Amino acid sequence: MDLDLIRRLSQPADTKVVLCVLDGLGGIQGPRGRTELEEANLVHLDRLAESGCLGRTLPVGYGITPGSGPGHIALFGYDPLVYEIGRGALEGTGIGFELGPNDVAARGNLCDLDADGRITDRRAGRLPTEETAKLCEQLRAIQFPGVEVFVEPVQEQRFVLVLRGEGMSDAIAETDPQREGVEPIEATHTAPEGERSASLVRDWITRAQEILAGRERGNGVLLRGWSKRPEMPPFPELWKLRAAAVTVYPMYRGVAKLCGMDSIEGAHTFEEELDLVAKHWDDYDFFFIHYKYTDSAGEDGDFRRKVDAISQFDAGLPKLLALKPNVLVVTGDHSTPSVMAQHSWHPVPLLLWGDQVRRDNAHQFSEPACAIGELGLFPAKEVLPIAFAHAGRLAKYGA
Amino acid sequence: MDLDLIRRLSQPADTKVVLCVLDGLGGIQGPRGRTELEEANLVHLDRLAESGCLGRTLPVGYGITPGSGPGHIALFGYDPLVYEIGRGALEGTGIGFELGPNDVAARGNLCDLDADGRITDRRAGRLPTEETAKLCEQLRAIQFPGVEVFVEPVQEQRFVLVLRGEGMSDAIAETDPQREGVEPIEATHTAPEGERSASLVRDWITRAQEILAGRERGNGVLLRGWSKRPEMPPFPELWKLRAAAVTVYPMYRGVAKLCGMDSIEGAHTFEEELDLVAKHWDDYDFFFIHYKYTDSAGEDGDFRRKVDAISQFDAGLPKLLALKPNVLVVTGDHSTPSVMAQHSWHPVPLLLWGDQVRRDNAHQFSEPACAIGELGLFPAKEVLPIAFAHAGRLAKYGA
Repeated sequence: MDLDLIRRLSQPADTKVVLCVLDGLGGIQGPRGRTELEEANLVHLDRLAESGCLGRTLPVGYGITPGSGPGHIALFGYDPLVYEIGRGALEGTGIGFELGPNDVAARGNLCDLDADGRITDRRAGRLPTEETAKLCEQLRAIQFPGVEVFVEPVQEQRFVLVLRGEGMSDAIAETDPQREGVEPIEATHTAPEGERSASLVRDWITRAQEILAGRERGNGVLLRGWSKRPEMPPFPELWKLRAAAVTVYPMYRGVAKLCGMDSIEGAHTFEEELDLVAKHWDDYDFFFIHYKYTDSAGEDGDFRRKVDAISQFDAGLPKLLALKPNVLVVTGDHSTPSVMAQHSWHPVPLLLWGDQVRRDNAHQFSEPACAIGELGLFPAKEVLPIAFAHAGRLAKYGA
Repeated sequence: MDLDLIRRLSQPADTKVVLCVLDGLGGIQGPRGRTELEEANLVHLDRLAESGCLGRTLPVGYGITPGSGPGHIALFGYDPLVYEIGRGALEGTGIGFELGPNDVAARGNLCDLDADGRITDRRAGRLPTEETAKLCEQLRAIQFPGVEVFVEPVQEQRFVLVLRGEGMSDAIAETDPQREGVEPIEATHTAPEGERSASLVRDWITRAQEILAGRERGNGVLLRGWSKRPEMPPFPELWKLRAAAVTVYPMYRGVAKLCGMDSIEGAHTFEEELDLVAKHWDDYDFFFIHYKYTDSAGEDGDFRRKVDAISQFDAGLPKLLALKPNVLVVTGDHSTPSVMAQHSWHPVPLLLWGDQVRRDNAHQFSEPACAIGELGLFPAKEVLPIAFAHAGRLAKYGA
């Protein structure tokens, strides 16, 4: 649904909607000819499939493998091809750095340079995270008048560089040539409005290189993915409700916050996520609960662990159901088939449960059952319009 | 998928993709209550359906019966409503005439005119092809300074007229009034840029009429469908690969060439098409193989012959499978139900086979099985994005 139409038709209601995202949920057939979902022990999900209905989503489009950013943006109801989160903004979001409207962010790599300034290792031998953290502290010494500079470690040799100030632009060229044996590319501006920002970035790089000089590993920096915070129409305004994200990993709460949701923090496990939802049940109309373990197992190519992760999610469900949500959605942000050990383009299974669901003939929650489910195959950005319709939160169109 | 997005996400890979187009593949139930696909003897296709997955395509849109041009344009990944091949360009392409960027082409009919110049038969009694060929030779005598003129026979009374020269425009009115008892319409220009071209065309018609004068049949000409070669972003650039078309009929290789594919020529049978594919297997990453006999049988309303054509395709498949393509697609460019004896708007069955396919429960390749297949009902222009995703030729979107 078009955001203007959402704005026009959305209406408050006294209902609770819960969106559970099992990261990378979808799979393909594994060694025994069945998918992870088919192998999992689904006591509660199968029961919900029986009394609810199934379908499948396309996160971005046919054949497109989504990153986590677009996968979630779509589930939150935004077109992921319109609202694109740049790599710098996503990396900042991923470590919980709150990007403001005047910020531009880049993803940084510490790298190794030889005496002639040529890159010998783009990742500085994957410098330990702690060492990168220390170097970031030193790099914070570089400051400019009128512009705040943030240097935040991420993992191994990766860091985030943020410039905050009036008129900062992301029209800055990437300095990473994506190969070794050559010098870093100059950070020129890629559009006239980027002139001042690019010039600051060149100064920053020069001074950073001075600070890092003499080090054996990590004596240089590479910057790419300059981007601003995407301008998302705020979710609570679009839908006229109070929305909260409950996640263990900062990246997912970051994306939710970019969309204007509140974040309820403090959970380190799924169990604790559910406790937080219970604790704040009266404070919100919509909860986004992120479950990471399906994707990590899938990305590790560990079929069995992904099966177990799904089973464990199922085991935790009664706690959520005890809260009596009016509408419950269980789906993924993309598929991560264990046999591929990476994100994929395959459609994502979805279960919708609520009073006003039109039931299909499904007896279990699985890819094949979802392929012939009531909801069909549809763009992920339509998940919440459908869910909110079932929660009485979308008015009639036309008289 | 949007062509800009294809350009952005496509990536080279060491994989082979084969698209087999059985022209007019889809059918509807015949005299025995089953479709042509259901009646055919499918040893190999049924096995591929078992280990692959099924779906159905909409070539142009709901309820739209596609011509061969748009049917193929869509299968090659282009929006057939954006990239329209005019009738003149298609007719030229159909006889293997290679349209250049400075060409405008029209479809011509020889017709019968009475003493007052009124049309008595728009098709000149369907003049024999050989006679049309002779008349075309005579008409080639008409030449203009600075403009090359081509007159090429097609079939029966049909021919193609091409003007080649700087500034030639297709903004020329059709002269065929689509009925008899009236004079041909004057070839005026339909936009200012067509003024010179239209004036040449009027001259050409006058002189053609002089050459044809005195004949009993075919003493006049009608011209319509003035069009230029469509500007297609070249397929090999979009997808970063080497693409080849293998067809028996010139029209289909013509459309493939308009899209920038190479054509491997010399085949007169399906058998010979497969031999050519085998011979050039190492030279290309993508092969489009066209199989005509399903459509010709369907258009003739010959249910049994269409069934046999499908069975014969199936029988030839082992030769193709022996080459070990990574991804194989078997589908049609549109449906041609034998009981209708013409192209139709019905969705087109599709089979996708490859390592990373998510299997469905299909045991045979048929319209009913495709209707509940994994891939659902989707636009034909998404066929290749899906196929290339399965071949590792599309990078992830977003981080």
